[in-house]
Amino acid sequence: MSEIRQNIVTKDWVIIATERAQRPDYFKKEEKPNTMLPEFENSCPFCPGNELNMSPEETLRIDKNNRWQVRIIPNKFPALSRVGERIRTVEGTKTKLTAVGLHEVVIETPIHNMTIANLSQEDFRNIIESYRLRYNQMMEDKRVEMIIIFKNHGEAAGTSLLHPHSQIVATPVVPSQVRERFNNAQKYFDDNFECVYCKILAEELKEGSRVFFETKHFVAFIPYAALSPFYSWIYPKRHYSCFGDITDEEVSDLGIMLQTTLKKYYVGLNDPDYNYVIRSAPTDSNNLDYFHWYISVIPRITKTAGFELGSGMYINPSLPENDAKFLKEIKI
Amino acid sequence: MSEIRQNIVTKDWVIIATERAQRPDYFKKEEKPNTMLPEFENSCPFCPGNELNMSPEETLRIDKNNRWQVRIIPNKFPALSRVGERIRTVEGTKTKLTAVGLHEVVIETPIHNMTIANLSQEDFRNIIESYRLRYNQMMEDKRVEMIIIFKNHGEAAGTSLLHPHSQIVATPVVPSQVRERFNNAQKYFDDNFECVYCKILAEELKEGSRVFFETKHFVAFIPYAALSPFYSWIYPKRHYSCFGDITDEEVSDLGIMLQTTLKKYYVGLNDPDYNYVIRSAPTDSNNLDYFHWYISVIPRITKTAGFELGSGMYINPSLPENDAKFLKEIKI
Repeated sequence: MSEIRQNIVTKDWVIIATERAQRPDYFKKEEKPNTMLPEFENSCPFCPGNELNMSPEETLRIDKNNRWQVRIIPNKFPALSRVGERIRTVEGTKTKLTAVGLHEVVIETPIHNMTIANLSQEDFRNIIESYRLRYNQMMEDKRVEMIIIFKNHGEAAGTSLLHPHSQIVATPVVPSQVRERFNNAQKYFDDNFECVYCKILAEELKEGSRVFFETKHFVAFIPYAALSPFYSWIYPKRHYSCFGDITDEEVSDLGIMLQTTLKKYYVGLNDPDYNYVIRSAPTDSNNLDYFHWYISVIPRITKTAGFELGSGMYINPSLPENDAKFLKEIKI
Repeated sequence: MSEIRQNIVTKDWVIIATERAQRPDYFKKEEKPNTMLPEFENSCPFCPGNELNMSPEETLRIDKNNRWQVRIIPNKFPALSRVGERIRTVEGTKTKLTAVGLHEVVIETPIHNMTIANLSQEDFRNIIESYRLRYNQMMEDKRVEMIIIFKNHGEAAGTSLLHPHSQIVATPVVPSQVRERFNNAQKYFDDNFECVYCKILAEELKEGSRVFFETKHFVAFIPYAALSPFYSWIYPKRHYSCFGDITDEEVSDLGIMLQTTLKKYYVGLNDPDYNYVIRSAPTDSNNLDYFHWYISVIPRITKTAGFELGSGMYINPSLPENDAKFLKEIKI
């Protein structure tokens, strides 16, 4: 019989459809990766040479031998305005807030047609270093309550521009989904005097069947109650709640981890569309006992339908243990 | 400046991107509806003539002149098993439950190539009547905690079979998303001695700018904090928490409401992909003061990307007030 598993942090229930589960390679993307794109595109605002006339002034740059490796620039069409104050207005059941905050783009490589899974570990180190630096700068903005770093890769994941990039959004509120996770994690700590994420990590390392890659400082695994095929988590082994507190050594190590993970997806699932997101603590928190930052990698292989929208429950047609075994065995 | 609006029940924040908002007709589907399908398809398990040899035994049927108008059958590949008991197992951080429950398909019309927006109000009455009858039967199953009625229309909404159908899933747990709504609605009632949904409805009727259709017993409007373009709610005017308690007169009236609403989408947005879902109370609740059942209609026009997955916040590139005005003016 199939089973319904619960994510202990979000309390989400997932139907793991074991009886009609698909084999992992069923989820491979059918089209081949597009290798016909040029290395440089004249009309691309992220390409070298177009820095001054086609993109807003950069907020951060990582150079090597006088050439940039990673640039961060304000989004030209930001969802949140850089200027202005947080003003909240309540009128009956209607609450609104001025849409102030930061919305920036991390240009991950100068090469237009690169797929980041094919970058080097050193390139990944630079990307993560740029995340850290900008994250900590954004923390200084008193209007900012939450900083969300994420990447959209491929059309199903919501990309509009091809040149490899990720985004950073600093919001003037703590999103309700984040509050919910926090409340649950805090309750777990109150009841057990232990971080629930540390506990999950210890169990996963002991059990081993859902872990597919491990470095000195990080572990990549498929969650027990993964919402969809190949959904994975990357946890730091050390307990700390704010991504901005990552050390130099951990930045390099996370470069190895993220490069290897994305390359395994690229090889095993034929360059699938995916999102990744760094889940860190709200900016006004000091190192929290009960929260642990981590990364979610979410391949966009299946579609959410009415059942998911209507219940918040998910149906996963792939077994987390099979997905982990498949990724573990992928040689890169 | 853009604004961030809050849904008072879910507490979700939505960035309403007023500055780069698109005009409503920007969201029209580009392809024309497919009118080349046959009225009857030999290999379709939902078509008349294939009832006995291609589909499981029906659980409900609505006839007229000895021909069926609507049939409900068990899903041939159910997410939940009809037989078995609810057994919960906890091992460390891992909680699981046997996947028992009901998963059925509502065949909305005998005509294979019909788009339900083009059905008559009488046909809609039959569909809603079948929902009510089966909902109330499923309530009797002691394993069932929640009954979710939903429809997936079009590929982006997760349809696999073309013949018009909706689905009913009866789950052995109350999903966490539903619990969250309930807790918030209960808190609102505790604080204000008033149903939050009744309050929203009264405000929307008074203000008028987001209402696009009204019948004797129902109101259709775009929520103040709509997550995506043309997301709409259909509320019953009478306060009651369980969909199964809908009266005969309300069933007919909801037929008019749902037919008109879907037809407005069909005409105005060129047969967009959409989901609708009936949000009712858990089966073990008696008529609740603080909860009010309703329908969400969710056109699948925009894609969720890393920001939405990472924060649970949404960016809506369309103004709810513009969407409502657009739908209100659509003549059908």
